[in-house]
Amino acid sequence: MKHIINEKNSAVKAMLSAYHFEHQDRLAIDTQHNIIYQKDVSGVSLISGGGSGHEPAHFGYVGEGMLSASVSGDLFTPPFPDAILRAIERTDTGAGALLIVKNFASDVEVFTEAKRLAKQKGHHVEMVIVSDDVSVDNKETYSKRKRGVAGTVLIYKILGYFKQHGLSLSELCTIADDLMPHLFTLGVALSSAALPETDPFFSLASNEVYFGVGIHGEKGYRKEPFQSSEQLAIELYNKLKHLHRFKPGEQYAFLINGLGATPLLEQYVFSHDIKRLAHLDKITIDFIKTGTQLSSYNMHGISLSCLKITDPRFKEALRMPVAASHW
Amino acid sequence: MKHIINEKNSAVKAMLSAYHFEHQDRLAIDTQHNIIYQKDVSGVSLISGGGSGHEPAHFGYVGEGMLSASVSGDLFTPPFPDAILRAIERTDTGAGALLIVKNFASDVEVFTEAKRLAKQKGHHVEMVIVSDDVSVDNKETYSKRKRGVAGTVLIYKILGYFKQHGLSLSELCTIADDLMPHLFTLGVALSSAALPETDPFFSLASNEVYFGVGIHGEKGYRKEPFQSSEQLAIELYNKLKHLHRFKPGEQYAFLINGLGATPLLEQYVFSHDIKRLAHLDKITIDFIKTGTQLSSYNMHGISLSCLKITDPRFKEALRMPVAASHW
Repeated sequence: MKHIINEKNSAVKAMLSAYHFEHQDRLAIDTQHNIIYQKDVSGVSLISGGGSGHEPAHFGYVGEGMLSASVSGDLFTPPFPDAILRAIERTDTGAGALLIVKNFASDVEVFTEAKRLAKQKGHHVEMVIVSDDVSVDNKETYSKRKRGVAGTVLIYKILGYFKQHGLSLSELCTIADDLMPHLFTLGVALSSAALPETDPFFSLASNEVYFGVGIHGEKGYRKEPFQSSEQLAIELYNKLKHLHRFKPGEQYAFLINGLGATPLLEQYVFSHDIKRLAHLDKITIDFIKTGTQLSSYNMHGISLSCLKITDPRFKEALRMPVAASHW
Repeated sequence: MKHIINEKNSAVKAMLSAYHFEHQDRLAIDTQHNIIYQKDVSGVSLISGGGSGHEPAHFGYVGEGMLSASVSGDLFTPPFPDAILRAIERTDTGAGALLIVKNFASDVEVFTEAKRLAKQKGHHVEMVIVSDDVSVDNKETYSKRKRGVAGTVLIYKILGYFKQHGLSLSELCTIADDLMPHLFTLGVALSSAALPETDPFFSLASNEVYFGVGIHGEKGYRKEPFQSSEQLAIELYNKLKHLHRFKPGEQYAFLINGLGATPLLEQYVFSHDIKRLAHLDKITIDFIKTGTQLSSYNMHGISLSCLKITDPRFKEALRMPVAASHW
């Protein structure tokens, strides 16, 4: 596997420098701490981040109407607490900061520590943990994994909208609490991610797919031979349908997310299959978005996120244009 | 190689249907002729298209400030002249239509025929042919290939800006004539594209790259062992520098384009290398954009486009926000 980088250790800083150079009219960079942040923050600061290798997450979502700042760790490695603390210090205008964290133990740990440090310094900080992944492990227990994956981007968008409309830190937490029980994601891989200087995380036969994979090379719950986009769509859709208990007339938002090396044509073919399944169930698609939004480096695969629209403002929040480059 | 599709013959229509469904508030579809077009066209109609497999080209650029319509052929296959004619009929408001065509013999042929048919029906139609690819063949002749590749997207953007500002068909042709001599692109592959039901177009050793490849599996001019992003950047940048004869203080726009399966992290690392080379030459980067803009299905690779900014309005044209989903 070839990777268009120079040195593994310099890749993240080079990427952030290039991204900032393109968007320097509206974004600032803290090169030491790998922070991309808005030049003009108003209201509550929304901060997210995590390991790199998930581009365009997270820096691609920094901008008016979405995130105030992103903090990047190394490839598949969380940032350090002091970097997150710096992001809070750089963007807290007095209205406080909300940390949006994907539910991985190591991410939760560093963000929790950063929150503690920031509170010591007098910042109002809250944390919401996204655990949209409904994959299960492949043992007899079928325990839920509850990782935070692509659905997180929908959370950015909706909270970003409400933050822009002046909601307070505690009001944003309430919105987040309303959203979380209704957001589910499930992914499938056609190949493993392979990071520079690292072997692929799992192997698949040339005709196999792997349902329920994570975004850091975590294994899925079942391998089976690939047949068609529709086969993948039915598996992912039906799992989410079962959890949501779809009823005709209910309103949903869908995110079809390429996992890194998936051609856009394939993402849209899959999106078409999802649309047809939703129509069969007579649910209303309030919002649908297809694209590479939260990737797993160079994985060929796709994930489906589904959010029940329990408040008409959520639909408006998802549809409103934003300044972020990659929404 | 697995492909997330159902049947090869239905993939393009499924993709366009899904894309239209997402953007139905502002875009219309002609499902028979694979046309995506603006609901509200004003001024000259800008039309492009070509084979599918280059997503987000071309439909991703339909919207106020860029294209009025796109016409999609099958995978790596041009659309039929009657489909292009239909696109002209659907979007010509009386101000005429400008066809923007990538320089491949088969594309030029079908667009020329469509232009002839449309003129018979009384439409004012002009055609600009983009031939930005500066690759050469690998024989002794080193004849220039002059294919139309990723730089075409910069042409969409600049002509879309001037069209939006009310320029006439003939004035847009003059702008296009001004731009074309100053636009060059060169690409490199780390793997071949592989279409559904088709073998890869060429093979590379696990450590090899191929300079000068096209976007339909066309071979390049030289293979060599991969070393680093910088090695690729130097080869592509120096070829374009030589053609432009860079002088300190001159202004340029750069497009760094992922060819389909290239992680965004790698695209930005490469972009960072280009930025550093440009700074060494003391040229001014008026505009730089990094992303998958015109792909070659699932090819791992990258292309570099460079446009000399010979008119300050071109910089403004490139920077203005647009409604198109994928710019």
